[in-house]
Amino acid sequence: VTAAPSAETFAERFAKRRAEFGPLCLGLDPSDDVLGAWGVDLDGFVDIALDAAAGSVAVVKPQSAFYERHGWQGVRSLSRLVSGCREGGVLVLLDAKRGDVGSTNEAYAAAYLGDGAPIHADAMTVTPYLGLAAMGAYIERGPVFVVTRSSNPEGRAVQAARGPDGLTVEQRMVLDIGALNARLAPGAVGPVGGVFGPTHAPPDDMDLAAMNGLFLAPGLGTQGATPADVAACFAACPDRVLPSASRSLLAAGPTVAGLRAAVRALSDELSSLLG
Amino acid sequence: VTAAPSAETFAERFAKRRAEFGPLCLGLDPSDDVLGAWGVDLDGFVDIALDAAAGSVAVVKPQSAFYERHGWQGVRSLSRLVSGCREGGVLVLLDAKRGDVGSTNEAYAAAYLGDGAPIHADAMTVTPYLGLAAMGAYIERGPVFVVTRSSNPEGRAVQAARGPDGLTVEQRMVLDIGALNARLAPGAVGPVGGVFGPTHAPPDDMDLAAMNGLFLAPGLGTQGATPADVAACFAACPDRVLPSASRSLLAAGPTVAGLRAAVRALSDELSSLLG
Repeated sequence: VTAAPSAETFAERFAKRRAEFGPLCLGLDPSDDVLGAWGVDLDGFVDIALDAAAGSVAVVKPQSAFYERHGWQGVRSLSRLVSGCREGGVLVLLDAKRGDVGSTNEAYAAAYLGDGAPIHADAMTVTPYLGLAAMGAYIERGPVFVVTRSSNPEGRAVQAARGPDGLTVEQRMVLDIGALNARLAPGAVGPVGGVFGPTHAPPDDMDLAAMNGLFLAPGLGTQGATPADVAACFAACPDRVLPSASRSLLAAGPTVAGLRAAVRALSDELSSLLG
Repeated sequence: VTAAPSAETFAERFAKRRAEFGPLCLGLDPSDDVLGAWGVDLDGFVDIALDAAAGSVAVVKPQSAFYERHGWQGVRSLSRLVSGCREGGVLVLLDAKRGDVGSTNEAYAAAYLGDGAPIHADAMTVTPYLGLAAMGAYIERGPVFVVTRSSNPEGRAVQAARGPDGLTVEQRMVLDIGALNARLAPGAVGPVGGVFGPTHAPPDDMDLAAMNGLFLAPGLGTQGATPADVAACFAACPDRVLPSASRSLLAAGPTVAGLRAAVRALSDELSSLLG
């Protein structure tokens, strides 16, 4: 595995935008509830989201499921959202949680990462049930966030199981991602990040800073995590976390002004806690 | 969790078609290599695949990645493939390996399973890194195949890890799926199947028949498993396995006659081994 060549890495681009807008990642999840409350269809949601995101947040995270829900027309709307955000200077982390065997991963990576991708995100989430070692196709095309510790309690059954070395699946994942980043980007923040829910007890048994990657922290707001939980979980590397909220922010829509105010308030709170 | 209501279950429909066509599941993976070798674009592939599948196989398994690779236009082609196969009497198992937290899974399930789904497959694959217990949204809408033991060696790092009860993640998955099926479909083959690669050593330590579900066995042909491996792995429940091959069969294209002959030969070999 080699990392995708890039004049400026995702981590560098995030650091610049974080300095301007704060670390908040705006989750763009157009559930039926949100569309109903806003009184819009999916393309109307995309129009408002584009206006609200540009010049307001560092990163947006569209959840692919809520676009796929509308068939190919929904994927077309997602396509417009992704390119529009990037044109507006907003980083796009596509939450797609793909993950399969190597040859299939090559097709998923070509779909969403790197030059020529029909939906060209800046980074995407992947799921490692088929092994972190099978995820090379993504890493060769662009930065990924590997689901490591999910924010839901049901994930414990898999993520807290232990390998022959006595480490849990999620501990092993953090170590293996760290080894990958050390090789791909020595001395820098590497291209392999982790999705790491801050809703369980803070991980005393994991050295998150040593992973040398970014973290997506989902579950802020409706899923139960607070900004203080995020600050506690990532105390060792507060500048490397992208705290993500969706439902609690979208509740301030459908006006662009309402959304931007909600984003600003949460982002300011996070900035004061994370520095 | 309750199962989706259905006049005839997926297992019953599979059993009928299996009696007519054999157990083979035709993988419809239009990789760049296949499109190049056939000299067609994605819609040309879909046209040929529809002709080759109808009246030839029990089940097809389109791999979503190879359609998403072409953006929303590719998803539109997938949509046409899925509805066309079903109209031709062929069961469609969509290989999408989705898996997320509960509310997101609801959107994915509504995208691909049950009445009103814009891409309405008969069943789909899901990935349980976020927990089998988070997959209820799928099961409520239609049959699923949960990735349990993948066909790639990299998956061992997660799937062979052990929980506090000493069972591996994949052993626990087989037991938990069995408990779900016993509750949802007592005395019958239940709506929750497993994706179970026959390429590793046969699982002496798992009671596959007791899971009371169907199995998708990927990796036949190019990935290294033989029909004899499938027969050995599923000796306890040979009538519940869908052995899947893609690349080795698509190599017989692009003529419909060539594809149908390759499908017939492999299906006959599987029927003679699996009964």
